[in-house]
Amino acid sequence: MTDRIHLFDTTLRDGQQTQGVQFSAAEKREIATLLDTLGIDHIEGGWPGANPTDSEFFDAPSKTRATLVAFGMTKRTGRSAANDDTLAAVLNAGTPSVCLVGKTHVKHVAQALGITNEENLDNIRESIAHLVAQGREAIFDAEHFFDGHALDPAYARACVETALEAGARWVALCDTNGGTMPAQIGEVVGDLIAKGIPGDRLGIHTHDDTGQAVAGSLAAIDAGARQVQGTLNGLGERCGNANLTTLIPTLLLKEPYRSQYVTGVPSHALPELLRISRRLDDILNRVPRRESPYVGASAFAHKAGLHASAVAKDPALYEHVSPSAVGNARIVPMSNQAGLSNLRERLAAAGLSGSDAQLQRILSEVKSREDRGYTYDGAQASFELLARKMLGKLPDFFEVKRYRVTVERRKNRRDEMISLSEAVVVVKVDGEKRMSVSDSMESGADAGPVNALSKALSKDLGRFQQQISDMQLKDFRVRIMQGGTEAVTRVIIDHEDASGRRWSTVGVSANIVDASFEALLDAIRWKLCAEGGAR
Amino acid sequence: MTDRIHLFDTTLRDGQQTQGVQFSAAEKREIATLLDTLGIDHIEGGWPGANPTDSEFFDAPSKTRATLVAFGMTKRTGRSAANDDTLAAVLNAGTPSVCLVGKTHVKHVAQALGITNEENLDNIRESIAHLVAQGREAIFDAEHFFDGHALDPAYARACVETALEAGARWVALCDTNGGTMPAQIGEVVGDLIAKGIPGDRLGIHTHDDTGQAVAGSLAAIDAGARQVQGTLNGLGERCGNANLTTLIPTLLLKEPYRSQYVTGVPSHALPELLRISRRLDDILNRVPRRESPYVGASAFAHKAGLHASAVAKDPALYEHVSPSAVGNARIVPMSNQAGLSNLRERLAAAGLSGSDAQLQRILSEVKSREDRGYTYDGAQASFELLARKMLGKLPDFFEVKRYRVTVERRKNRRDEMISLSEAVVVVKVDGEKRMSVSDSMESGADAGPVNALSKALSKDLGRFQQQISDMQLKDFRVRIMQGGTEAVTRVIIDHEDASGRRWSTVGVSANIVDASFEALLDAIRWKLCAEGGAR
Repeated sequence: MTDRIHLFDTTLRDGQQTQGVQFSAAEKREIATLLDTLGIDHIEGGWPGANPTDSEFFDAPSKTRATLVAFGMTKRTGRSAANDDTLAAVLNAGTPSVCLVGKTHVKHVAQALGITNEENLDNIRESIAHLVAQGREAIFDAEHFFDGHALDPAYARACVETALEAGARWVALCDTNGGTMPAQIGEVVGDLIAKGIPGDRLGIHTHDDTGQAVAGSLAAIDAGARQVQGTLNGLGERCGNANLTTLIPTLLLKEPYRSQYVTGVPSHALPELLRISRRLDDILNRVPRRESPYVGASAFAHKAGLHASAVAKDPALYEHVSPSAVGNARIVPMSNQAGLSNLRERLAAAGLSGSDAQLQRILSEVKSREDRGYTYDGAQASFELLARKMLGKLPDFFEVKRYRVTVERRKNRRDEMISLSEAVVVVKVDGEKRMSVSDSMESGADAGPVNALSKALSKDLGRFQQQISDMQLKDFRVRIMQGGTEAVTRVIIDHEDASGRRWSTVGVSANIVDASFEALLDAIRWKLCAEGGAR
Repeated sequence: MTDRIHLFDTTLRDGQQTQGVQFSAAEKREIATLLDTLGIDHIEGGWPGANPTDSEFFDAPSKTRATLVAFGMTKRTGRSAANDDTLAAVLNAGTPSVCLVGKTHVKHVAQALGITNEENLDNIRESIAHLVAQGREAIFDAEHFFDGHALDPAYARACVETALEAGARWVALCDTNGGTMPAQIGEVVGDLIAKGIPGDRLGIHTHDDTGQAVAGSLAAIDAGARQVQGTLNGLGERCGNANLTTLIPTLLLKEPYRSQYVTGVPSHALPELLRISRRLDDILNRVPRRESPYVGASAFAHKAGLHASAVAKDPALYEHVSPSAVGNARIVPMSNQAGLSNLRERLAAAGLSGSDAQLQRILSEVKSREDRGYTYDGAQASFELLARKMLGKLPDFFEVKRYRVTVERRKNRRDEMISLSEAVVVVKVDGEKRMSVSDSMESGADAGPVNALSKALSKDLGRFQQQISDMQLKDFRVRIMQGGTEAVTRVIIDHEDASGRRWSTVGVSANIVDASFEALLDAIRWKLCAEGGAR
């Protein structure tokens, strides 16, 4: 006997409360489509009427199999639900489902709203009944429910019962401040169900303020709740909401959930999870969190030398789920913690091998470079080039003799401030000196010195020109590091080519332009190796 | 009746397994001192003999009130504990406490070690007895304990009992793969205690592979375990270990832990937590995670307009703990989600105020700039300057007429590649044009264009020169953003001055040098305002 767990995504509403996050309407549409791919049941799109972007999204929402939900709040005291303009704006979005937040905590009723407990119950009852009368599915978000229940359990429960009696399909119990322990959440949900509230009409909405949003959600499910609210990548106000990117694989892959429940996410959609998580980071220009459960770049990284050698024998003894189930992959990163067995495995992945003595030399070179600020964990392409070079397997494609880059900012003839970047690069290919110059104009605007250098460098590489023509610079990350006594700049550059291949290179220097140039050079050399130039 | 919970930190050992993390011995010493400030009971320093840095650390460890622990593994089969050279190296570190990891999972015994179950028990017994005979406190890390217990509970339990009977003070139950649910952890710990193993000799060691390391640790405490192993900022292999930076405030501030338990962390040390967490990020050159429970920059950020206005009335209704208890502060970030009440509060913090119409104009300017790639959530100083400008309260300290920066890389007379950066800046102060030029030499090496620009810009600002003389550039972060149709570069620069004040400014341009220059200019202007120039 398996129970259905309903997944309610609020990335586009509560997730937008994340500090630094602001979606455009177009981005909201793309995210809704991603969620739909995954098989989410409800997608909460925002609060129509509360801000222009949300209204724009609801004007032309994505077509989804999932039920689209508009968010709002219960009507104000002193007017009818039909005459509440805020509520009217929410209904005007025309979504099949509407979620209204309301108070359930006696102090919030008194202090934030300044009304009586009875008036608050009326607002809940009439607002929900109004939704139902309009033919909408009604969901009630019971704000500050667990804090309210701790103070006055009878009133908090009465709010839930009122919403359900008025016709709400779901009441989501919200731990709005994120401070309730999972064990408490489980107890309270169990108590509500014991007092006659059906678990298949209860949802759970948690926040990560004690790092336990996922655990709190699972505790509610264990106690009988059947809807979970959360966000992709755990976006959300303060420390974030319950992370659906973590909860979904847990529900599908881990016991006891795997056997006891079903969700709307088909197991063939699960390997899409990593791509969807990364795409959301792309949209937000966020660096994907390496440590994220299931989808993080480090989630299946075996750094300890002992583990790395044993995991090769039987992965199931060292991994709680298979990385491929969530679209991820096992990695054995390079670092000075690693032993020879790590190194051998990593080289093999690049089609390289060497004697123990050679491997030992590579290890100590990696260590010495990491001491100077390089990092090879996150720049596999630069690691491969270093290894190739030390194994005598890196061709001298070309040599850079010198470069110069200039950035100037001054007024033009129309008295506007303009910038102009220019780079000169001199390389030697096949014994012949080639001098290239480039500005940095991209659609009429100056794109800066790294762009100018990249263009000048890739302008004339003789017989290699064709092989690098599809390279595109995708990301560029800079950190100031303490390298010995002096600060140095570390630049990591990601490139992609037409085949979708993506590779990362690293450069280190006190000079950011030099560091960038080093990473650009590595990127070109790696691409030339990949194109067969090294075979 | 309060029970003592013992805190065991493994930042320097398991934390070093984090991808991209490599401590020097000096950094290990500093971190040990930070942990000691906090009041941790045990500090695991590393594996002496396994890598040079760990050995170097133990050669001259920090003097701590906390018990220093050396890590190693149980002796190998076929030799006595006294004749095992790996174990000898661990004992030679001379720490008062030694923690040995060993197998408890029958499949690991057979497949990874290739020995019999009885031989493994002998190894545990003899290794622990050997430590005790040498006068050391012995701790046994029961590797893969929960997976082992699921497969063969009697054998897993026998391993624990063997270690305790041989004299181990603690046996830490390790969820090495991080896949066990908190509810299961609680059940298994409860079962061990019910079968006669004393809870005050059991520790818990969890990993965050399902995002539940903290919840798993608390479930073990709820069931009776009395030692918790974890790391600062949740460092650790794959998704990280249980995060002590989250667990400690939870144990001290949250019920039922606050009333039922005591730890070695005095409540007056707790406000140091944020500083210690940030210092570790500094050492690792990591960007502090804004969403971290308790210590994250966003942990007490009230972005939603509704919350922001209500939280001013009664913070306790909106915050699960007081931000100051952990050294953090409430913030009301600026963004286009925010309403006027947010904005008013944020301006007041900078000593500014304005009419509703002025505030409305500031809000829409912030929104329009955020659409172009700026961010004011993380660059409060630039936000203040923008607001000052729109309120007519930003003096025209000086005007930049033009600048030029050159980076050249070529061979010197000794045929070595060298770089040289040079900047010319022309400013107008008090009606007078001032032209400054600077190279970028720092202790004999070139530090790049932003350094050259910063030096040229701050070389001659006339009567303002004195006020900016103590500014220091502390961090420099760069992201490529999609600003409309074109990629733009966003630079955030942190400065600090002699009074310890730290401020962040933002610049956006397709050209990284221009974006940096804009942020540098903002930094100087903000400093001049702060020095009283704007009053």
